[in-house]
Amino acid sequence: MIAIGERINGQFDDARKAIAAKDKKVIHDLARRQTEAGAHYLDVNVGTAAADQQAAMQWLVTTIQETCRTPLCLDSQKPAVIKAGLAVADTSMGIMLNSSPLDKKSDPNVLDTYIGMAKESNGVLITLTMDKEGVPQNVEKRVEIAAFIVGKAMELDFPVDKLYIDPIVLPVNVPGAQTQPGFLLEAIRQIKILNDPAPMTTLGLSNVSQGTTERSLINRIFLSMALSAGLDSAIVDVFDDKLMDVVATTEMLLNKQIYSDSFLRAYRALHTG
Amino acid sequence: MIAIGERINGQFDDARKAIAAKDKKVIHDLARRQTEAGAHYLDVNVGTAAADQQAAMQWLVTTIQETCRTPLCLDSQKPAVIKAGLAVADTSMGIMLNSSPLDKKSDPNVLDTYIGMAKESNGVLITLTMDKEGVPQNVEKRVEIAAFIVGKAMELDFPVDKLYIDPIVLPVNVPGAQTQPGFLLEAIRQIKILNDPAPMTTLGLSNVSQGTTERSLINRIFLSMALSAGLDSAIVDVFDDKLMDVVATTEMLLNKQIYSDSFLRAYRALHTG
Repeated sequence: MIAIGERINGQFDDARKAIAAKDKKVIHDLARRQTEAGAHYLDVNVGTAAADQQAAMQWLVTTIQETCRTPLCLDSQKPAVIKAGLAVADTSMGIMLNSSPLDKKSDPNVLDTYIGMAKESNGVLITLTMDKEGVPQNVEKRVEIAAFIVGKAMELDFPVDKLYIDPIVLPVNVPGAQTQPGFLLEAIRQIKILNDPAPMTTLGLSNVSQGTTERSLINRIFLSMALSAGLDSAIVDVFDDKLMDVVATTEMLLNKQIYSDSFLRAYRALHTG
Repeated sequence: MIAIGERINGQFDDARKAIAAKDKKVIHDLARRQTEAGAHYLDVNVGTAAADQQAAMQWLVTTIQETCRTPLCLDSQKPAVIKAGLAVADTSMGIMLNSSPLDKKSDPNVLDTYIGMAKESNGVLITLTMDKEGVPQNVEKRVEIAAFIVGKAMELDFPVDKLYIDPIVLPVNVPGAQTQPGFLLEAIRQIKILNDPAPMTTLGLSNVSQGTTERSLINRIFLSMALSAGLDSAIVDVFDDKLMDVVATTEMLLNKQIYSDSFLRAYRALHTG
């Protein structure tokens, strides 16, 4: 699994304060520790911590790059913020852009813009199964939007296997939403057979357990189920050791990592920076 | 998930010694504690603990029934041993017979015999995707054998949804066998769409981790993946609290148990005797 470390995000208290105070030490620490814990990409999201989001994104990217060479996942719904990040990012190790819906009422061509930036930076792109009508609540509409996204990528000569399609996780504890995790698994299965080569898939995992009493348990079991359904990547809390052990075990059972008596340690050795 | 408690089996030291010594206390204890831990059925297997397996099966059944009314899962490859167990079993709470292959070189009609006993006792029957050639190592042959089993059940007027088809778990650490868990998941998916109503599916779970260093972790992750693929039942170590929590979490995520902040406790309250 391609693990995207979720922690450099203004929605977390420590990151928000660090961005507001330009406290490099906290960001260095989060970047380094997530890399050591197995993050293949570091998500970078300024959240609401700064009035000038473009400047904050540039400060974050520059700061992270002072301490590690882990590929970044520039995370913003605003193309201008992504563009600002790209202007200072070292993309030679790879870069991920996060994320675009199929379209928006306010910006019908938003996907073209994100694909254009991904092409220019030779990066990969997370796209959401979401359109101008909002987030679909069923399997069919998610897969339909994914198919339109794949079509758009082809039209713009963007390699389909550089698309990371995110079918959008909703919290399981919201009344009426308990069907959603099962729908997500089925959407992943169907998205993986939309095309050959298949698009990649990803999830913002922690959202599934938002507000629940058993966050880590729910996260790790849902991640294992999703990997088993064909998930390629997830935005996760890489500091959760039990979660990373579950990834290693799931991949071993799916024959994606070789079994040895020390397979948990071997997985870490292979994936940590 | 229909949990079949694995512990009353002569392959375990304590059970073997208790059977040999006719020590009722150990068997009472295993029966009661497995029921309290959430077993819907108690597997009853004399193993190699007794020269007279029929007498040992009858002693086990009688002894268990002194302490609880949990339905039994009479487990033997010898029809005569099952028959002996049935002669003394109270089947009014339900009974499971475990297990028959499609056929055997030494007994081409073995499945007819087991289906006959299951019909007579108004029970359900575990069948193995195994035939006179042995245990298949791929998906296709497992599903083909399952289809023949379903056909045989129909021919003999045995309800297909009373068949529990076991695609046979092999240890993941055997060189060359690491493809097997993935094949099992795919076999489960295909067996569940063989017929309407679908046959039930089951697994001897603990075998997947035989000889590994992380038995509980491997067991519980594989169980979650298998439930997610459509598994209905498993023969498990119900004393493994973490395993039972994973079952509760998986079923909650699949919308088979309602979410509440106390869903782990609620699952236990619902399923324990």
